[in-house]
Amino acid sequence: MLTFYYYPGTCARAVHIALEDAGAIYERRRVDFAKAEQRGADYLRINPKGRVPALATERGVLTEAPALLVYVAQTHPQAKLAPLDDPFAFAQMQGFAAYLASTVHVAHAHRPRASRWADEASSQEDMRAKTPANMRECFGLIQRELFRGPWAMGEDYTVIDPYLYTLAGWLGTHGVDIEEFPAIAEHSGRMSARDSVRRVLAIEAA
Amino acid sequence: MLTFYYYPGTCARAVHIALEDAGAIYERRRVDFAKAEQRGADYLRINPKGRVPALATERGVLTEAPALLVYVAQTHPQAKLAPLDDPFAFAQMQGFAAYLASTVHVAHAHRPRASRWADEASSQEDMRAKTPANMRECFGLIQRELFRGPWAMGEDYTVIDPYLYTLAGWLGTHGVDIEEFPAIAEHSGRMSARDSVRRVLAIEAA
Repeated sequence: MLTFYYYPGTCARAVHIALEDAGAIYERRRVDFAKAEQRGADYLRINPKGRVPALATERGVLTEAPALLVYVAQTHPQAKLAPLDDPFAFAQMQGFAAYLASTVHVAHAHRPRASRWADEASSQEDMRAKTPANMRECFGLIQRELFRGPWAMGEDYTVIDPYLYTLAGWLGTHGVDIEEFPAIAEHSGRMSARDSVRRVLAIEAA
Repeated sequence: MLTFYYYPGTCARAVHIALEDAGAIYERRRVDFAKAEQRGADYLRINPKGRVPALATERGVLTEAPALLVYVAQTHPQAKLAPLDDPFAFAQMQGFAAYLASTVHVAHAHRPRASRWADEASSQEDMRAKTPANMRECFGLIQRELFRGPWAMGEDYTVIDPYLYTLAGWLGTHGVDIEEFPAIAEHSGRMSARDSVRRVLAIEAA
């Protein structure tokens, strides 16, 4: 049995959608960030990083969104959520995931999590002031260079789609209109119509 | 034929070592950061992100260290550089790679690349002042929670080993003595003795 740890609105949403896409059998546990449960002793025993997502399996706990997305795809091959038999296509997909994790998510985090990287209030304010420009640069590059359409990797839906959808959903928090990136906006619209996405958003809102 | 793009001292070193570990046949091209070649039109046609590593293949260019490391392992299975047939172990390995890319490399980058995330000189100075504490936190967590020994993932050498070795090599630039983390220091010593690592360091120094 899998146990999935998440908090609404975080990048765990991408893995949550992938689990639904895969038809996975799992329990879900909300880690209440509003009560700082992710920093509590109980959760730190599950994930010492104090972050979500985490996925507890019979063999141990897995963490990091890019790793979990591929794990869901590999353990549910019938769902065809990744090009598992083509190392080149798989590496392209992994490259997209790595960009979302290491550049886009990081660009975003400088608004809500600026204190990770600087102590002075003025520095944190300066970092927050720069996130709209950095998010625009990221999504410009995604639309121009990485996104293929109709899905992120082209004709086939993959685990990158819920990941891109989740991070694109953060643009508004930076005051950036997703419509500045028409292909990304259209992709988000198409994602929003999927049953898996509707289910996850309903669970998050419950 | 593969063409590998790198610059000495960057995270491309990890992929460079993995290529040598794999016995891969490839050409290498140094992208001269000292001349800002990574921002030049010629290189941006290869990698629009203006970063290294990049790996040009017959089917196109691949980027992002975590993706390239797995690609090298998957396309050179005889080298046994990753647990390719065990989705759980593979996800553990990918989780380690994602932590190195998205947390450790990012913590490091706030010293040499602070201008990515804030414009004011005082903010950038504040970010640089915090990197030793963040690097210590990262390597403390790695030693305590992620590193298994004798290699990063346990008994078997994997592509995580050159990645960890490369990023551990940056500790000194933050004024952090690697000996604060004895298991990581010992691992780096063991890595330094490998022929693949010696070859890569000699090429970088040439």
